[in-house]
Amino acid sequence: MPAPIDFYFDFSSPYGYLGAELIEALAAKHGRAVAWHPVLLGAIFKETGGAPLTQLPLKGSYSKRDFARSARYHGVAFRMPTRFPIPAQAPSRIVLSLRDRDPVLAARVAKALYRAYFVDDQDISDPGIAASVAGGAGADAAAARAAVDDPALKDALKCEVVQAIDLGVFGSPFVVVDGEPFWGVDRFPQIDRWLADGGF
Amino acid sequence: MPAPIDFYFDFSSPYGYLGAELIEALAAKHGRAVAWHPVLLGAIFKETGGAPLTQLPLKGSYSKRDFARSARYHGVAFRMPTRFPIPAQAPSRIVLSLRDRDPVLAARVAKALYRAYFVDDQDISDPGIAASVAGGAGADAAAARAAVDDPALKDALKCEVVQAIDLGVFGSPFVVVDGEPFWGVDRFPQIDRWLADGGF
Repeated sequence: MPAPIDFYFDFSSPYGYLGAELIEALAAKHGRAVAWHPVLLGAIFKETGGAPLTQLPLKGSYSKRDFARSARYHGVAFRMPTRFPIPAQAPSRIVLSLRDRDPVLAARVAKALYRAYFVDDQDISDPGIAASVAGGAGADAAAARAAVDDPALKDALKCEVVQAIDLGVFGSPFVVVDGEPFWGVDRFPQIDRWLADGGF
Repeated sequence: MPAPIDFYFDFSSPYGYLGAELIEALAAKHGRAVAWHPVLLGAIFKETGGAPLTQLPLKGSYSKRDFARSARYHGVAFRMPTRFPIPAQAPSRIVLSLRDRDPVLAARVAKALYRAYFVDDQDISDPGIAASVAGGAGADAAAARAAVDDPALKDALKCEVVQAIDLGVFGSPFVVVDGEPFWGVDRFPQIDRWLADGGF
């Protein structure tokens, strides 16, 4: 079995959400699993000098238009959330609390959290809301709520972020395939060919 | 005859070069012509706070890898120039000097200049080199060399940049189709569908 594809994402990232909707089918097409890595772009931007797209002159208004258009292009439901961006600690810790012992459930919960935010306009930065969404996706809601405040999971998320930066991750989504880095949903066609041909 | 597609590019932009190699076939597929608009990203970045990709932490090394990989993906010859980035005034003024009276020649010269820089590693910021390349592509080399220092063409280039910023152009390549803005070579598949379906 070849190594899984590493999928890095921030729960506040619209393109991360689109990537989350598309990555599993892409990986499965090539017999690969997906390793889900929630990260915090705010912490990464402190290292890299990046900034949220929507807050940049000119790029800001373009990006909002492009989020919605890219979602339509890929056939993915999307609504710009009322509150944006949000801190992603709560949903990220919940996903990490599930990942090692049940990666399939962790992926289902991650996608449910993303949809709650980018389709149903729920503020998943709220620990209670995030835990409730996780519960609806099959996780133990009380355990999920506890995970948000668990010091071990706080540390686990910090480590994910540090490791991601060490690997060169600077955006969301960011995919690493056998050591090759790909930034953005718009690189998924290149990932597809890379997986098919073993590089190009 | 529907309106041409507006194609904005900086001669120092690797993705602009890839776009220049691909845009005409894409437009022609849908019965459209291409209006070529050389701009100066340096001037645009002063307005938008942008910066050359290759100079950003993490993004810099990724982007160099992605330039070459994206070129291979699209089947376009590419070599990272020894001198990068370069000021694009000379080649831009030459293209503007040709565009209004012979847009077909202007496009041919633009592509020749891009290839001279991104394939043959010629420093097209040098007026003599840029004029020589234009001559090789069918333009009058002496007139091209004179265009670089022509105050009217200096003003024309400034106006192109100001108008581009007013339209929301903040990167290269940047394509506007019937008022709809698309940033990046990676949006060409969306442009393709937009032209086929009249929006989506």
